Amino acid sequence: MSLRGWGDPAQAAPLPESLQRLLRDVLDVDDRRRVPGLRSPVRLAPVRLDRRVALELAGIVGADGVHGDDEARLRHAVGRSTPDLLALRGPKPIAAPDLVLAPDSHDQVMTVLERCSARRVAVVPFGGGTSVVGGVEPDAGAYSGVVALDLARLNALEQLDEESRLATLGPGLRGPEAEWLLADRGYTIGHFPQSFEYATLGGFAATRSSGQASAGYGRFDEQVMALRVATPVGTLELGRAPRSAAGPDLRQLILGSEGAFGVITSLTLAVRPAPATRVYDGWRFPTFADGTRALRVLAQDGPRPTVLRLSDEVETALTLARPGVSGGANGGSAPAGCLAIVGFEGEVDAVGRRRSRVTDVLAAHHAEPVAGAGDSWSEGRYRAPYLRDALLDAGALVETLETACFWSSLHELRAAVTTALRDALINEDPPTPPVILCHVSHVYAAGASLYFTVAAAQSADPIAQWRRAQAAAGAAIAAVGGTITHHHGVGRDHVPWYQREIGELGVTALRSVKRTLDPAGILNPGVLLSAENLHTDLRGSR
Amino acid sequence: MSLRGWGDPAQAAPLPESLQRLLRDVLDVDDRRRVPGLRSPVRLAPVRLDRRVALELAGIVGADGVHGDDEARLRHAVGRSTPDLLALRGPKPIAAPDLVLAPDSHDQVMTVLERCSARRVAVVPFGGGTSVVGGVEPDAGAYSGVVALDLARLNALEQLDEESRLATLGPGLRGPEAEWLLADRGYTIGHFPQSFEYATLGGFAATRSSGQASAGYGRFDEQVMALRVATPVGTLELGRAPRSAAGPDLRQLILGSEGAFGVITSLTLAVRPAPATRVYDGWRFPTFADGTRALRVLAQDGPRPTVLRLSDEVETALTLARPGVSGGANGGSAPAGCLAIVGFEGEVDAVGRRRSRVTDVLAAHHAEPVAGAGDSWSEGRYRAPYLRDALLDAGALVETLETACFWSSLHELRAAVTTALRDALINEDPPTPPVILCHVSHVYAAGASLYFTVAAAQSADPIAQWRRAQAAAGAAIAAVGGTITHHHGVGRDHVPWYQREIGELGVTALRSVKRTLDPAGILNPGVLLSAENLHTDLRGSR
Repeated sequence: MSLRGWGDPAQAAPLPESLQRLLRDVLDVDDRRRVPGLRSPVRLAPVRLDRRVALELAGIVGADGVHGDDEARLRHAVGRSTPDLLALRGPKPIAAPDLVLAPDSHDQVMTVLERCSARRVAVVPFGGGTSVVGGVEPDAGAYSGVVALDLARLNALEQLDEESRLATLGPGLRGPEAEWLLADRGYTIGHFPQSFEYATLGGFAATRSSGQASAGYGRFDEQVMALRVATPVGTLELGRAPRSAAGPDLRQLILGSEGAFGVITSLTLAVRPAPATRVYDGWRFPTFADGTRALRVLAQDGPRPTVLRLSDEVETALTLARPGVSGGANGGSAPAGCLAIVGFEGEVDAVGRRRSRVTDVLAAHHAEPVAGAGDSWSEGRYRAPYLRDALLDAGALVETLETACFWSSLHELRAAVTTALRDALINEDPPTPPVILCHVSHVYAAGASLYFTVAAAQSADPIAQWRRAQAAAGAAIAAVGGTITHHHGVGRDHVPWYQREIGELGVTALRSVKRTLDPAGILNPGVLLSAENLHTDLRGSR
Repeated sequence: MSLRGWGDPAQAAPLPESLQRLLRDVLDVDDRRRVPGLRSPVRLAPVRLDRRVALELAGIVGADGVHGDDEARLRHAVGRSTPDLLALRGPKPIAAPDLVLAPDSHDQVMTVLERCSARRVAVVPFGGGTSVVGGVEPDAGAYSGVVALDLARLNALEQLDEESRLATLGPGLRGPEAEWLLADRGYTIGHFPQSFEYATLGGFAATRSSGQASAGYGRFDEQVMALRVATPVGTLELGRAPRSAAGPDLRQLILGSEGAFGVITSLTLAVRPAPATRVYDGWRFPTFADGTRALRVLAQDGPRPTVLRLSDEVETALTLARPGVSGGANGGSAPAGCLAIVGFEGEVDAVGRRRSRVTDVLAAHHAEPVAGAGDSWSEGRYRAPYLRDALLDAGALVETLETACFWSSLHELRAAVTTALRDALINEDPPTPPVILCHVSHVYAAGASLYFTVAAAQSADPIAQWRRAQAAAGAAIAAVGGTITHHHGVGRDHVPWYQREIGELGVTALRSVKRTLDPAGILNPGVLLSAENLHTDLRGSR
């Protein structure tokens, strides 16, 4: 992973002409605002951890598992949100973990947690470092130091139960590593979020990730059948059957816990036979309302495609204007309509049957095929973060946020978030009127997610600029009654809105679990639950 | 509900000849062992609750919502497990709640919980009273009394969101009541467990119920999109979208909590259009292994029928020997094979397509159609509890238990439970060798459930006899690594095995949640968590 941007530095690309035009003609990003390139080197905040404690912790994982150099600290310092990337481009020193520990067994994780609890050292579980919500920022606060617990060495395919279609895997496996291991045996997990190339299985589970093929394969949390979890006070072994009535499903207490309750050291996932074929079609709806109606029919009555997403008019116009996409008649004033990507993976015959029936539904909702758009989406499906880097370097502010709600609120939610983002950015001084793109990225029988991309000129303090826009969007989501995040997670960025969403009592219940599993409060302090009052009690809790 | 048996007393039926033969020729149940009929009236343990407290509580719900007579107390005293039914037939006085309160609003529930917390009165949330695991027994213990909180008056269809296919319903609605309300609008919940006619929506949610049509409609917990929950310290409002990444899914902390964490006062459920047609087919596999292979293929690769169950050889022989089922060539020594019920509900065309493809899969696994068996199953699907009453009256011990595991352990689990039950009952003095029936009742891609029915002659103390057999089965389930319950719930009966299943740390985590939401420990004491050490702490919890 690039030290200050996304992914493989060799894959960084110049901005396509269409985006250069957008910057110049629409967002009014000019040379005045252009960021003067990356300063070198990034400055890190000084190490706080006592040297003797560092040696004690290093002894647990052995020489191969310890990294204290600045590059390792920097690599574990931040995720990949736009504020993260802006911070890496900015002048302020970056708060980095004091030490990176990479245990190679569950027992080593247990020992690290026990020792860090005794020494009051905060522990940030670290997978791919791709959080876009502040999920891995070291929050030294009241602690004697911060350790990043890199799970990369827990990377085995421990077991494959072909009869039950279950794979037991290490949490440190990145998406492609896990897929390669399983492909050798003829299987796939089928989890392909935009972060796929860098994010890890443990991270997918801890953040309730959802991939681009969720319509076909389901969410990642739905694929988790069993978990082994290391906590400072013991091990949890959860999951003995696909489903059970034995009390509340405790797997669900760990899924979404973002490293605050324990460290996932092993996952047993539902896998499927690797698909024989993959087909991605592009379709154009006259309006967003037509498109969402069609998506709803497919989600409720089936058949479900494997990939199903729908861009709004603005996103469609930008997408189809990009080079490499044929069928984009967007040079003139003709409305682009709304582009849907409809993908199918599976056995050849089954894909043929599903595709034919889906085509009938799409056509009944006035959609027309867009030649090449599906393949183009497939080729570029992991590329957007590279574009963001180039846009940030060019002086644009670009960030995404997402939410979900029931179908009956979807249009209201989209309008409210769009208005909130636009108003917030127009009210900057000087105004930075944005371009706002939206797409439906995940569908369910009862509702869907909305994914927004916002682009504007950077103000003098672009991090503060984005925080204001983000807060406005959060307030709009709360007002309409959507969830503050459908698949990015809460991290540190969404804590206030998250706490409003689950209510005071929900927060108190989670705090009681946290106190039980992590009595010293060392695990990823500040995610999910605000760190400052970690040990204060609300009524009823003691 | 019959005061001392199942369901509508008018529907009680004499034992069919085939079961009379089973009792006489196989189980050796003779007149010596015949229970002398129901004693009348049932004796209840005395009321303990202070009269002033009773009046105070009565004042909350008003005259229409208070019942203190013996019949009301008896109706809320026990569930419908075999030990419950044996207790109702036995000489010992029954522990009954002191008072039955039927609030008609969320606010009344809140006030009851608050007052009972202040007065240390235990509260047992009560739906249909159909628990078969000791889910509603009043556990007075250290409390000043026990109140049954009957939710029958929370029975409204509060809202129907047709676009999102969501119905918001009161927890006190019995299965048929909810279906009637929705049928008026063209929808169904599709949840049809054997207890359907009497159990309530709140009970389905609190116990993670699974119905006979789970292959098509899913489990009940999967249909719950939002919950309102009253606790002694406040209200939880959970669920803003079909799925979310906003922390752990707190809905899952209430689902399966069996009334120990709060009282569900409103549920928002995914509903579907009422099916235009329903077809239930019977198929016979040569062996149980053939049948489970076919079920696994359907669960993993589809298409899924709506109903899918497979009886083992013994259950098949008994089923096909019953009058009214044609195709049963079981008079002689010809092996009956294994009967599968394969049902389809939905639009006529879709049912036709699915049925045709499922037929191909079944035939490829050597199954042959059994004329009439599907319809016969459908007609009798809610009748088994009536048969149990007649068998108990005739001197047989009859009870069921169920478990689930991943596919690769299914045959091992079935053998282990069967052996454990048989050994336990043969080792009674005098021996009571059992007949053990088993069927697969619910299938998933990763595994399936097993449902056992055990019949033996009653010993002198049939409750203790069953507890010994049940404990042996629990030990076998734990040893193989199955879950102690797939859909009946934990109640009081399974607490020891449940605690082993989730481990000491899992228990401690649940206790911390319990202490937060129910600091006085009044809610259904003794379910899920053993009551005796409710307020003791394990390491790490404070």
